[in-house]
Amino acid sequence: MDALKQRILKDGKNLGGGILKVDGFINHQVDTGLIFACGQELARRFASIKATKVLTAEISGIGPALATGYHLGIPVVYARKSKPITMPDDVFLTLAPSHTKGRTVELIVSPEYLSGGERVLIIDDFLASGATILGLVRLAQTAGAKIVGIGALVEKCFEGGRRALEPLGVPIEALARVEKMDGQQITLAAD
Amino acid sequence: MDALKQRILKDGKNLGGGILKVDGFINHQVDTGLIFACGQELARRFASIKATKVLTAEISGIGPALATGYHLGIPVVYARKSKPITMPDDVFLTLAPSHTKGRTVELIVSPEYLSGGERVLIIDDFLASGATILGLVRLAQTAGAKIVGIGALVEKCFEGGRRALEPLGVPIEALARVEKMDGQQITLAAD
Repeated sequence: MDALKQRILKDGKNLGGGILKVDGFINHQVDTGLIFACGQELARRFASIKATKVLTAEISGIGPALATGYHLGIPVVYARKSKPITMPDDVFLTLAPSHTKGRTVELIVSPEYLSGGERVLIIDDFLASGATILGLVRLAQTAGAKIVGIGALVEKCFEGGRRALEPLGVPIEALARVEKMDGQQITLAAD
Repeated sequence: MDALKQRILKDGKNLGGGILKVDGFINHQVDTGLIFACGQELARRFASIKATKVLTAEISGIGPALATGYHLGIPVVYARKSKPITMPDDVFLTLAPSHTKGRTVELIVSPEYLSGGERVLIIDDFLASGATILGLVRLAQTAGAKIVGIGALVEKCFEGGRRALEPLGVPIEALARVEKMDGQQITLAAD
């Protein structure tokens, strides 16, 4: 998706160690027009999979997921990283390693909002190692729901996430694919 | 706003102790159509204040803020509760007591995205005691920005937040105002 790719090349920052900073338009400050255009494009790509729910993880997945769910006309569930007092005692919980936090985080979903028969589209800001998305896959599968697609704004192709998710046999879409991050450079894939 | 009020009366749950559970449509599962209609209504009410940026706090403020910022055509900044590795070392930080978490949380904004000359509209899911919103006010003021409005989806009138914010002298809007929460009842204000 050209608008996102150009924005990454203009305002994204390669901080080294594979860390791509997009805090100015996705992750801390959000360009609302851009994020909604991204959601519209993801909704277009997943129009035929008949998803009934979008699943994401707080915090930075929420924006892309809401924009996508809005354009598909379906609700979004975001997995919590700590259990709020409004959640029942019995929950779906899994652990996922977080690269940016350098530790393992909990992903928690209430059984009230994820159940068998749902067709789940997973949306996140980044597809990197795939660890967070695989955590969301486990939550959905535990609930008896069916994963029907996986989408991200930005893929870091060199972290192997796509390969880890391919055995699921569902369409995987990323709107901008980062092929290499050498020195201070950011190189996008040509597609 | 009627759609939100009716949804609160239908699906909101009074858990006692002043806790209103709206996890089914705002806070864990999000009704994307409803949240965008809420954002559109907040944008309409704040159309004349010439805001240049929406400020909110992660996590549950993000949805309402994005929907409002999108309809106003301005960016959203969400204060983080922990400093990500992509953030510079010098930040704006304040502490705010969190009723639902029973402890004090940090609210952190990078000076990269909040500066003097900005006209800031604060949006959150709840206006309760006003403690989180006052934290956001302090962050914006420290940055030299001007607060021009405060909006929330749901106001709990009995927690005094509006009174705490009125000295700021800016318009305060809430789309549904909860007047009383007795037993299992939820009573909305008539306006």
